[in-house]
Amino acid sequence: MFKAVLSDSNILKTSFDAISSIVDEVQMQADEEGLRLDALDRSHITFVHLELKKGVFDEYQCDEPMKINVDTEELMKVLKRAKAEDMVELTVDEGNLILSFEGEARRKFKIRLIDIEYEAPSPPQLEYPTEFEVPFSLLKDSIQDIGIVSDKISLHVNEEKFEASAEGEFGDAKIEYLHGEKIEESARSIFSLEKVKEMLKADKFSESAVLRLGNDMPLNLALKMASDEGELSFLLAPRIESEE
Amino acid sequence: MFKAVLSDSNILKTSFDAISSIVDEVQMQADEEGLRLDALDRSHITFVHLELKKGVFDEYQCDEPMKINVDTEELMKVLKRAKAEDMVELTVDEGNLILSFEGEARRKFKIRLIDIEYEAPSPPQLEYPTEFEVPFSLLKDSIQDIGIVSDKISLHVNEEKFEASAEGEFGDAKIEYLHGEKIEESARSIFSLEKVKEMLKADKFSESAVLRLGNDMPLNLALKMASDEGELSFLLAPRIESEE
Amino acid sequence: MFKAVLSDSNILKTSFDAISSIVDEVQMQADEEGLRLDALDRSHITFVHLELKKGVFDEYQCDEPMKINVDTEELMKVLKRAKAEDMVELTVDEGNLILSFEGEARRKFKIRLIDIEYEAPSPPQLEYPTEFEVPFSLLKDSIQDIGIVSDKISLHVNEEKFEASAEGEFGDAKIEYLHGEKIEESARSIFSLEKVKEMLKADKFSESAVLRLGNDMPLNLALKMASDEGELSFLLAPRIESEE
Repeated sequence: MFKAVLSDSNILKTSFDAISSIVDEVQMQADEEGLRLDALDRSHITFVHLELKKGVFDEYQCDEPMKINVDTEELMKVLKRAKAEDMVELTVDEGNLILSFEGEARRKFKIRLIDIEYEAPSPPQLEYPTEFEVPFSLLKDSIQDIGIVSDKISLHVNEEKFEASAEGEFGDAKIEYLHGEKIEESARSIFSLEKVKEMLKADKFSESAVLRLGNDMPLNLALKMASDEGELSFLLAPRIESEE
Repeated sequence: MFKAVLSDSNILKTSFDAISSIVDEVQMQADEEGLRLDALDRSHITFVHLELKKGVFDEYQCDEPMKINVDTEELMKVLKRAKAEDMVELTVDEGNLILSFEGEARRKFKIRLIDIEYEAPSPPQLEYPTEFEVPFSLLKDSIQDIGIVSDKISLHVNEEKFEASAEGEFGDAKIEYLHGEKIEESARSIFSLEKVKEMLKADKFSESAVLRLGNDMPLNLALKMASDEGELSFLLAPRIESEE
Repeated sequence: MFKAVLSDSNILKTSFDAISSIVDEVQMQADEEGLRLDALDRSHITFVHLELKKGVFDEYQCDEPMKINVDTEELMKVLKRAKAEDMVELTVDEGNLILSFEGEARRKFKIRLIDIEYEAPSPPQLEYPTEFEVPFSLLKDSIQDIGIVSDKISLHVNEEKFEASAEGEFGDAKIEYLHGEKIEESARSIFSLEKVKEMLKADKFSESAVLRLGNDMPLNLALKMASDEGELSFLLAPRIESEE
C-alpha cells in the first residue's frame, strides 16, 4: 500500500521539469521515510537527487519499500496538467503510477510503469572549499545573459563575489553578485551552458540555491525547502578546458 | 437595408473562432427577428447553429430577409482585430460585408461576399435520454487532459457524475465531475478529440455548457447567453468503435 | 573618457529594436552635447535619426568627440537583457562598447566595436504641407489591421481626419482618426507595410507620434520625449504606384 497526498503540485512539477530534461527514465524509491530518486544522465555529466520526506506530504503511507519506475517525459506531460490549487494524490496499482488531481473535478491519470534494470547510482562524496547562497532568479538570468555570447559558462567565486562569465567572438558577458558570505578560498570551473540550463528548470522548488564550487570540480547545486523536509540537488561535471 | 450594432465584440469573435475551424464558408441569414447561421462541415461530422436574436444587439434593423455568404477565415481575421471595448457595426453593400469597429479611431473592414450555392442544412431532431450542465472551463481542461494519452475521448454520464476518459498506450486519463442533476439513465459515446477541440474554441460565449448525451448518439453541446436571446450549439457525430 | 548613465533602459531598448531591424551596422557619435546616430538602410528607403542629449542621462561625460561603431543585432541582443528597473551604464574601452546593468547583481557586457567606413548620412530637408499628432498605439493597430488585407498602406490626411487604408483581393480596411488639428491642405502617400512595421517597433519611446505627410512624399515620423532632450525620427520613402 502506497499513498502520498501533496497540496503543492508545484513541488513535483518543477522538479520533474528539470529531471525529465536530464534523464528519460527514472526510479523513485518509496519507503516509510518518504520518496527519493537518484539518477545519472546517459553521458554521466549530471547527477540528480530528489528527496521528499514524509513530512512534505499532507498524508503519506508506505507499508513496505517499493520501486516506481517511470518514463520521465510521460510523467511530466501529466504533471503539467496539474493546477496550482489542485491537491495531488499518488498511488500505484499493479502496473501503473496513478496521479489524481482534486479540484473542481477529479482528474485521474494512470502512467504505465516501465520495466527497467535500474541500479540507483550513488552521488560521489566530494569535499568543497566553498559554499554560498545565490537567488535562484539570478542564476536563471545569468545563463540567459551568458547565452548571448557563448555556450560555456565560467563560474568563479572569491571572498566577496560570485561571478558568472563567458567570452565570445562578438562580445563578453560577466555577472557579479556580492554573496556576503565568508569564503576564504576562491574557486573556478567551466560548465556547459546547456547542462546548467537543464538544472535551472526547477525554478519553483526554492527561491534560493546553495552552490558549492571548487577548481575544476563538479558544480553542486542544492535547492532546499524552507521546512528542510525536501531537497533537490544536482552535481554537474565541469568541462575540461585546455586553456582559458 | 441591414444594420446591426453590438457592444460586445466577444460574442462574434468567440463564435466565429469555433465556426471558422469547422467550416470554410458560411451563410448568415438575416431577417427582422435577428441573425442565424446553420452549417455542416464537409465530412458531415459537426453541425453548428448560431442564433443572435434582435435583442442581443444594441441596434438592429433588417427590412427584408437577406443571405450573407462569407469565407469564415477572412471574417475571423477581421474579427480578431476587434478590441474588447470596441462597438461593432455590421452592414452590407453591393458586394461586401462591412464591419466597423468604433473606439479611439473608426476602423472599417470590408469583406467580399462570396457566391455560393448554399442550402442551409437543418439540424436533425433527436431525443436525448440525458441533459446536464458543465462549466465550460472544465470541458476545455478535459480535452487537454485527454490529449496527452489519446486522440479519442469517451464521454459518459450517469446518475451522479459526468466522466471524460481515454485509454492510451502509455497511460490513461479520466475526469470525473459531479453534475448534481437528476439523470435516470446513463449514456456513453466516443468522439474524435480533434472535433471536440474545434467546438470548444467558443469559450467566451457562455460560462457553462449544456450537454446532451445518449448511447452512441451525437453530442449536443449548447451555449446559451444569460439573456436567452443568443445561442450557439453544436452536434457532433460519435465515432463508431468496434469494441471498447 | 566616455561614460553615460541612464536610469530608463527602455529608451535604448525600444529605439534599437526599431534601428536594428532597419540597419545592420551603425555609428553612434558622442560629444559633449550627447549621443546621436544617423543611418540609412541599404535600399535607401528608411532614414533613421536618434538623438539623446546630455540631459536625458543621469550622468554624462564625454571629453572629446568619438565614434562608436557597432553591429546593431549584437547590441540589441544585449539590450534585451536589461530589466526595466536596471540602471544602464555605457562606456568604451580600446575595442569594445561596454554596457553595465546594475540591479540585484552587476551584469556587464562587452560588444566588439566594428571597423566600418561610415560616412554619417544627413537627412534631406523637406518642406511638408501637413503636421499632426497621432497616438502611437493607433499606428501600431493600423498596420496590424491593414496587414490582413494588403502589404501596402495608404496614408491620407485632410482637414478633419487621418486615414490609413488599403484594398486587397478579399477585402478592404480603413482606419479613420479625428486628429483635431488645423490642416489646410490634404496629402496622401503609399508605403510598404513592412517598412512601416520596422519603424513602429520603437513603441516605448513616446506615447504619441508627430507625422508629416505630403503627396507622394516621404513619411516623417517623429517621436519626442516629454523633456525635449531626446528624439527618435524616421523618414520613409513612398512607394511609387502606377495607379490607385
